[in-house]
Amino acid sequence: MNDRASDPLQATARRRVRDVSVNLAHGSGGRAMRDLIEDVFVSTFDNPTLAALEDQAVFTLADLATHGDRLAFTTDSYVVDPLFFPGGDIGTLAVSGTVNDLAVCGATPLYLSCAMVIEEGLAVDVLRRVAASMQRVALEAGVAIVTGDTKVVERGCADKLFINTAGIGVVRRDVSISARHACPGDVVIVNGYLGDHGAAILVARQQLALEADVESDCGPLNSLIAAMLDACPRIHCLRDATRGGVATVLNEFARSSNVTIRLREADLPLREQVKGACEILGLDPLYLANEGKLVAVVPADAAERVLAAMRAHPAGREAAAIGTVETGELGADGLVVMQTAFGGQRIVDMLVGEQLPRIC
Amino acid sequence: MNDRASDPLQATARRRVRDVSVNLAHGSGGRAMRDLIEDVFVSTFDNPTLAALEDQAVFTLADLATHGDRLAFTTDSYVVDPLFFPGGDIGTLAVSGTVNDLAVCGATPLYLSCAMVIEEGLAVDVLRRVAASMQRVALEAGVAIVTGDTKVVERGCADKLFINTAGIGVVRRDVSISARHACPGDVVIVNGYLGDHGAAILVARQQLALEADVESDCGPLNSLIAAMLDACPRIHCLRDATRGGVATVLNEFARSSNVTIRLREADLPLREQVKGACEILGLDPLYLANEGKLVAVVPADAAERVLAAMRAHPAGREAAAIGTVETGELGADGLVVMQTAFGGQRIVDMLVGEQLPRIC
Repeated sequence: MNDRASDPLQATARRRVRDVSVNLAHGSGGRAMRDLIEDVFVSTFDNPTLAALEDQAVFTLADLATHGDRLAFTTDSYVVDPLFFPGGDIGTLAVSGTVNDLAVCGATPLYLSCAMVIEEGLAVDVLRRVAASMQRVALEAGVAIVTGDTKVVERGCADKLFINTAGIGVVRRDVSISARHACPGDVVIVNGYLGDHGAAILVARQQLALEADVESDCGPLNSLIAAMLDACPRIHCLRDATRGGVATVLNEFARSSNVTIRLREADLPLREQVKGACEILGLDPLYLANEGKLVAVVPADAAERVLAAMRAHPAGREAAAIGTVETGELGADGLVVMQTAFGGQRIVDMLVGEQLPRIC
Repeated sequence: MNDRASDPLQATARRRVRDVSVNLAHGSGGRAMRDLIEDVFVSTFDNPTLAALEDQAVFTLADLATHGDRLAFTTDSYVVDPLFFPGGDIGTLAVSGTVNDLAVCGATPLYLSCAMVIEEGLAVDVLRRVAASMQRVALEAGVAIVTGDTKVVERGCADKLFINTAGIGVVRRDVSISARHACPGDVVIVNGYLGDHGAAILVARQQLALEADVESDCGPLNSLIAAMLDACPRIHCLRDATRGGVATVLNEFARSSNVTIRLREADLPLREQVKGACEILGLDPLYLANEGKLVAVVPADAAERVLAAMRAHPAGREAAAIGTVETGELGADGLVVMQTAFGGQRIVDMLVGEQLPRIC
């Protein structure tokens, strides 16, 4: 069905967009839109399914079943401000984020959609750069961007560019990960420094001048997670710690599993400059967004094996055990408690207000 | 994995949003966002997969395979202005549009995602109304909204509300529909009056005062298409005629199949008031958006059978054959030609500029 890329008509039909900036005709459904899609997206994302320009991508279920027995389906919109920041841009974010949402349930991410809402006047070159970033991360993660949509709204009706990606993947056969599976005795692990993405966005917004560079940790985690699952297929909980940070993920685990999670402040991997910036700005790094960090809850007897597998992977070199799971307090919904560096303890609640709007 | 709805904690944990309007905290990833999602979306979309509040929905491939042998995957963003219009709203559009994109490839639509980009200050009641519309159409179409995302941007950075839906469905076993499959001799069919959605949006924007009411045709077409495929599994081409209208769809068929499509102007089903409005405003109804209209290309010997099946369905009562497929002109890319009511003929090109921005 999607074999049109091999059609000789395809090559002759592809036109190059001559406009410097996007105008409303690029969202009209007509020729200008088709030219923009073919020139900027189809040529960059470069796969026959997308090139067929049908309104949907089609795959045989038999092919999908070679990866496992369950289909995973997820979506996220990306509205990050600014579009480009140290370590990434809205395109790297849009692919990494959705790949990671699939990978954390034990799925092999396979196919992504890409829907753009573009503000009239956006430079076509910005779209080209973002599309190139998306494709670079897609190749790294081993996924294909197979279907999409383009809308253009009038100047002032959106802020430059919003991207939605949805993703499908197939869950490995022997895996059962859920926020409800944390058990007393389990070990809580993260794959490295916390809060880098949040700090990088603050720097990009010039709300923060750091002595040393901090780059966003934005990147796909599927190959790291595959290595972790190879080491221990019975990982109990796994989630990427994006908006709301590690604290929010841990609160969801604690609440869903009705357990108490005890963190050790001294064991949190934090860069000195991120820690310092948080102190100055009154932010808590536990709530700061990450875009390449995960939180795993694993059986105690597998913790060292999982940590070793993570540290052998480029995305897990600074992996650390940061806490343990305990029996839930009677009548409580599930608590996260921090053992502070000074020997005290405090409750780490869910994020209540807003730390940083449009972080992703 | 998604069995949390049966958890007694679930009911007690669901909080009601007390805010009258959406603020940035509702997009923070923290408690305010969770409350908004649980109160407005989870309670309305009402299914255990979404209620599990994992970051992805999971389905067994074996269950999917009961519907057919191929998975279809599609996405669309909706930026319609205004949010509410005669005959529908952005919510009915967001579910119908994605259901229809799945159905036109012969898929049974099954699961949708729902990602909202909300402008700070939007009334929570608007979200509730839109969510209720989405659920009403989802129930009508037999799909479930199983995963989602919520982002909030500052006042002035988006226009009230944008919705993205992605969808997955399973293609029936005996079906092979493609824009490339039109053959000389085939008959071109539509399921009713053209341009109603475009006209309804013009009325809603007060750019047009019509003597009689025109309502958007916005609605799901999957059960109509199922009836058509029961009558003729070998439908060659099928697409919903949204942005760019019937003219754009036919141009894509003509070009992809390298054929000429000849339309008979006298046979186009047009309401008098839509025809009149187009004459006054200088719009061509063939390019006007529809949100519940499809264009089918079927073998000549099946045309009457398909038309009869369509006319027996509420969404196809005014179905009509509007043209035929002919051999392509030598060296031409595929043309659409209109036999006018006065005996002449003119080429119906793809839409070049923009007729009506933000029509969907």
